[in-house]
Amino acid sequence: MTIKSQNITAVAHRVSADERALVNGHKGGVLWFTGLSGSGKTTLAFELEQRLFARGYQVYVLDGDNVRHGLNSDLGFSPEDRAENIRRIGEVAALFGEAGSIVISAFISPYRDDRKLARSAAHEGFHEVYLSADLAACEARDPKGLYKKAHAGEIADFTGVSAPYEEPENADLEIDTGTLGVEESIAILTDYIDTVFGVPKD
Amino acid sequence: MTIKSQNITAVAHRVSADERALVNGHKGGVLWFTGLSGSGKTTLAFELEQRLFARGYQVYVLDGDNVRHGLNSDLGFSPEDRAENIRRIGEVAALFGEAGSIVISAFISPYRDDRKLARSAAHEGFHEVYLSADLAACEARDPKGLYKKAHAGEIADFTGVSAPYEEPENADLEIDTGTLGVEESIAILTDYIDTVFGVPKD
Repeated sequence: MTIKSQNITAVAHRVSADERALVNGHKGGVLWFTGLSGSGKTTLAFELEQRLFARGYQVYVLDGDNVRHGLNSDLGFSPEDRAENIRRIGEVAALFGEAGSIVISAFISPYRDDRKLARSAAHEGFHEVYLSADLAACEARDPKGLYKKAHAGEIADFTGVSAPYEEPENADLEIDTGTLGVEESIAILTDYIDTVFGVPKD
Repeated sequence: MTIKSQNITAVAHRVSADERALVNGHKGGVLWFTGLSGSGKTTLAFELEQRLFARGYQVYVLDGDNVRHGLNSDLGFSPEDRAENIRRIGEVAALFGEAGSIVISAFISPYRDDRKLARSAAHEGFHEVYLSADLAACEARDPKGLYKKAHAGEIADFTGVSAPYEEPENADLEIDTGTLGVEESIAILTDYIDTVFGVPKD
């Protein structure tokens, strides 16, 4: 494009992560929830989003609802498609982090290699949060009746029942959501966020 | 998850678009740039990002640099892969819009059907911006020497040379970047944005 006017002083460049953090009052990055079905990922993600939003954070939740019907609507549940599902979510989460938001990803993401790939996409902005309610606790809750169906053979490859869950070996944060309630879990999460992402000014 | 504490007053829900707009001072949505190679998409996208950021907007650019190397690194340049490339960008842009940001998408996106799909992902938050510098103007600039290579047969299926560009029929905004400079184009864009997305408070 011909630059006609003379009042151009700088070549356009991407706004940096530091500039965004300065304005928002907190860094951008990824809170990657992982845990069994029923471990509280969705409940905590939306509760946390509301709390952070109310305190002035730029925050957004990626979950099955907004990802599976859109970006990943072409993917099924084969092993390859499940891996690709998590790969794309990791890349999108990284973009949100780069844009200055705290993005909370709420997917079982049972495989270490998939989570490792998500971490590598977001670099140091990635925080793995293991919601470690054990299988017994999750089965006892079974809020959507999925474990019952899985045991009846109505759902194939169900994590914890007929498909493996690979526990994180070095999660950045672990919350035993089998024994801790929502308020206690949120308190741990907000303390962690205040420390690693910073706190918006009023 | 067992809710142990008694001070839970509301079931967690997604923070709404209206709540986000109220805090940010502007709506979220998608500015979808389309135009030939050399029409100014990248230059204007980054210049606009800087200007909007300086005025307090939440804004982010999606371009080949942050998308092709990450989210769409599995895609090549076959017709199917090109369509899938734009489909995914449209879905990611829609997520950013939902999260309250103005996202500027800077891809040639030569096909009407692909752009239509992107619009349907972001609903009324989608704004097609046609940078309408014509082929002669773009070829005359040829900032990366790509037209020269395309004419020499070194690049296959190059838009405008050996692959079609389908002009928008009902762009929300058209800027003739063949005759207008950066400052004039940015002025048109910021006027448009102030009107349809709103203006952040100081």
